[in-house]
Amino acid sequence: MHRAAILLLVALPVASDEIPERHAAVAERILGAALAQGGAARFAEQLSDGIGPRLAGSPGDAAAVRWALDELSRLGLEARTEKVTVPVWVRGEESARIVAPVEQRLVVTALGGSVATPPDGITGDVLMVTSIEELRGIAADRVRGKIVLFNRAIAPGFAGYSASGGMRSRGPSEAARLGAVASLVRSLGTLSARLPHTGGMRYASDAPRIPAAAVAAEDADLIQRLLARDGAVRVTLRLGCETRPDAESANVIAELPGRERPEEIVLIGAHLDSWDLGTGAIDDAAGVGIVMDTLRILKSQGLVPRRTLRAVLFANEENGLRGARSYAEEHAPELPRHVVAMEADAGGGRPVGLAVEAGPGGLERLTQIAGLFPLLAAGRVPRVGLLQEDAHYFDWHHTAADTFDKIDPRALAESAAFFAIVAFALAEDPGTLPRPEPPAKPEP
Amino acid sequence: MHRAAILLLVALPVASDEIPERHAAVAERILGAALAQGGAARFAEQLSDGIGPRLAGSPGDAAAVRWALDELSRLGLEARTEKVTVPVWVRGEESARIVAPVEQRLVVTALGGSVATPPDGITGDVLMVTSIEELRGIAADRVRGKIVLFNRAIAPGFAGYSASGGMRSRGPSEAARLGAVASLVRSLGTLSARLPHTGGMRYASDAPRIPAAAVAAEDADLIQRLLARDGAVRVTLRLGCETRPDAESANVIAELPGRERPEEIVLIGAHLDSWDLGTGAIDDAAGVGIVMDTLRILKSQGLVPRRTLRAVLFANEENGLRGARSYAEEHAPELPRHVVAMEADAGGGRPVGLAVEAGPGGLERLTQIAGLFPLLAAGRVPRVGLLQEDAHYFDWHHTAADTFDKIDPRALAESAAFFAIVAFALAEDPGTLPRPEPPAKPEP
Repeated sequence: MHRAAILLLVALPVASDEIPERHAAVAERILGAALAQGGAARFAEQLSDGIGPRLAGSPGDAAAVRWALDELSRLGLEARTEKVTVPVWVRGEESARIVAPVEQRLVVTALGGSVATPPDGITGDVLMVTSIEELRGIAADRVRGKIVLFNRAIAPGFAGYSASGGMRSRGPSEAARLGAVASLVRSLGTLSARLPHTGGMRYASDAPRIPAAAVAAEDADLIQRLLARDGAVRVTLRLGCETRPDAESANVIAELPGRERPEEIVLIGAHLDSWDLGTGAIDDAAGVGIVMDTLRILKSQGLVPRRTLRAVLFANEENGLRGARSYAEEHAPELPRHVVAMEADAGGGRPVGLAVEAGPGGLERLTQIAGLFPLLAAGRVPRVGLLQEDAHYFDWHHTAADTFDKIDPRALAESAAFFAIVAFALAEDPGTLPRPEPPAKPEP
Repeated sequence: MHRAAILLLVALPVASDEIPERHAAVAERILGAALAQGGAARFAEQLSDGIGPRLAGSPGDAAAVRWALDELSRLGLEARTEKVTVPVWVRGEESARIVAPVEQRLVVTALGGSVATPPDGITGDVLMVTSIEELRGIAADRVRGKIVLFNRAIAPGFAGYSASGGMRSRGPSEAARLGAVASLVRSLGTLSARLPHTGGMRYASDAPRIPAAAVAAEDADLIQRLLARDGAVRVTLRLGCETRPDAESANVIAELPGRERPEEIVLIGAHLDSWDLGTGAIDDAAGVGIVMDTLRILKSQGLVPRRTLRAVLFANEENGLRGARSYAEEHAPELPRHVVAMEADAGGGRPVGLAVEAGPGGLERLTQIAGLFPLLAAGRVPRVGLLQEDAHYFDWHHTAADTFDKIDPRALAESAAFFAIVAFALAEDPGTLPRPEPPAKPEP
């Protein structure tokens, strides 16, 4: 992306008309520092190569917390941790096979939080649907004893992912309510590489907990072809996953205190944890790199905005959101002093804009980025998510292939610069984004 | 591809000037039958979906032989098997980890024929090279005790693959001669999907047999970055593979007897076996489909060429070439009556031309397709390989992702039509391709 284009993007987020004179010069300095020093990619490399997978409560998670604390301190900041109690879920062995009408291996991976199958697995005929709505239209006696397969391909990018994410997160309980014995979802991914994509899933309190896994796109296609050919496909699924007692992890926090209104907070956040399959490079070492580089650049350039810039590297975004929940609870009295929350959790691509959720007069109401910050919504904090090029993001998202090579250091530096400029502008702006309106009360 | 383009490609292979008048009409009929009935993709689907992996000597291999025999008989042909004694190699458990300077999982897969490691694995420092030549320039005392990593990315297509294949097939013995304890090769693949690509490997008789595996491209990159950062990387490799006693498999053969010179043979071949990781769709269910559909089309259209068209579905191409060797031995007296051998082993893509190896006056001398037929060269049989679009072939070649969805039925039908037209033309042509010259004797 051309330098001018980045600076043009920067024009967007300033909510007030009172744009300080020195804005453009500051933006140039930030951009120069981000591109020349490549700090975001360096941080991301340290986290993904040097620590690797870091699912909540794992040794990698603990190492990531120590690393972040060390690196932020090395920037000359007072970094601290805030304790978060996190779930501990361990994947274990996992496998699946078609056992009739042919014998074929299936490539599967358990969804985060799934219960295990018995050691010999669960065997059942597959009932294939393309949506939760379709499933709801099927009589329970046709679902009972079946393994439900949610099979719909997604379009590239966040829009495609968001449209189908419910099949993964809510599908298992929807299927269980109708008597299904296990739930499979076609991987929410966009690459033909027989890659299974894991991800979060939530059991409803009113449904039996059945084992839930993602299946590679190729294998969902195979099941579909065999169903078309033979009318029935029988599958055995074995998951050895396990939920252990909760463990202690932490949000890592560091601040640049504001020069005029230090009590007002611009929060910039990313998540430190990752799934266990890859090394969590695009999700979310890239975002951690962006947030940490924002602090590094402003600190090294001596840029002190009006308000306090608070970086929060959240624990347990992937399988529980306990880090964000804990932050929202612990800091509830302070939330009215959060003027905006910015999030970097959209990969290693070039910046393409911002998703802004604010009150009337806010720029736009986009919901593509649905990560940590919904939990801050209770405090009605305006939210700004960094949008990045995402055409390939879901090729690798939540898979073993989420590794550092997927990050283009130059693109990430541009995103870091853009993010830092916006953060600075929001912390500097005499005005603030209007707060979102409270959610409408449901009709009685 | 446009119909006219396929018919234009057909103009190429006819070696003699005496092109029969009816040629163009025949080509049109073959093309129509291939496109309308999609037989090649149907055969490929049956083999890859219905049987799946079929490494020599495995239950899948035996099922594939039975299937081919049944399907060819169903076409009204007298199909037969010729016994081939094949090696039996079983993959077993396989894993690898970086153990220093960080802990990271590596995605690996054993190369076909590799010996196992001890149960606790082999641990050693990595010595990275980018070619066999570079390795040869290193003193043995720097290689002794090391795990050699051959790390060079390949360009897309067969040309890129051929240029680097030696690292996989000969690298392990080259490393062992200098005292290495194990050999890793960067996957010979072109997709960033953390996919390990297996493949054949041959131990030299004068070198110790050391375990040999392919590592995903991402993991080769990680090792390279860590070497650059820390100077040393220590890896533990565990392979549980095993070579069992030889087993019996078979080449499957069926013919369309020639109308004038039945004793002269145009051989059309593909290989029935596959690697164990995927379902062998592009390698080589697609080629099997092309060869079988050639017989189906000519038979159903009542097209009987001058010479005999003999289809051979070879056993054990992937890890031993015993099917081709056995054929060359058994049929040695007949080889002078083989006027040409055509091969389909280049995936499911559209046809783009032919690789022709023949004597002076033959069309071109291309060596991109180096599959079964070198073994027929002793009999100096002219060889013609089908060239297909290959920009993505090495995305999936020899991986778990080699599955039926990678085949575009329309593209494969075009390739089958092209192959069938060329086979018919060569069997019909009153003249023949000149035979290749005997290989030059090495200088004394």
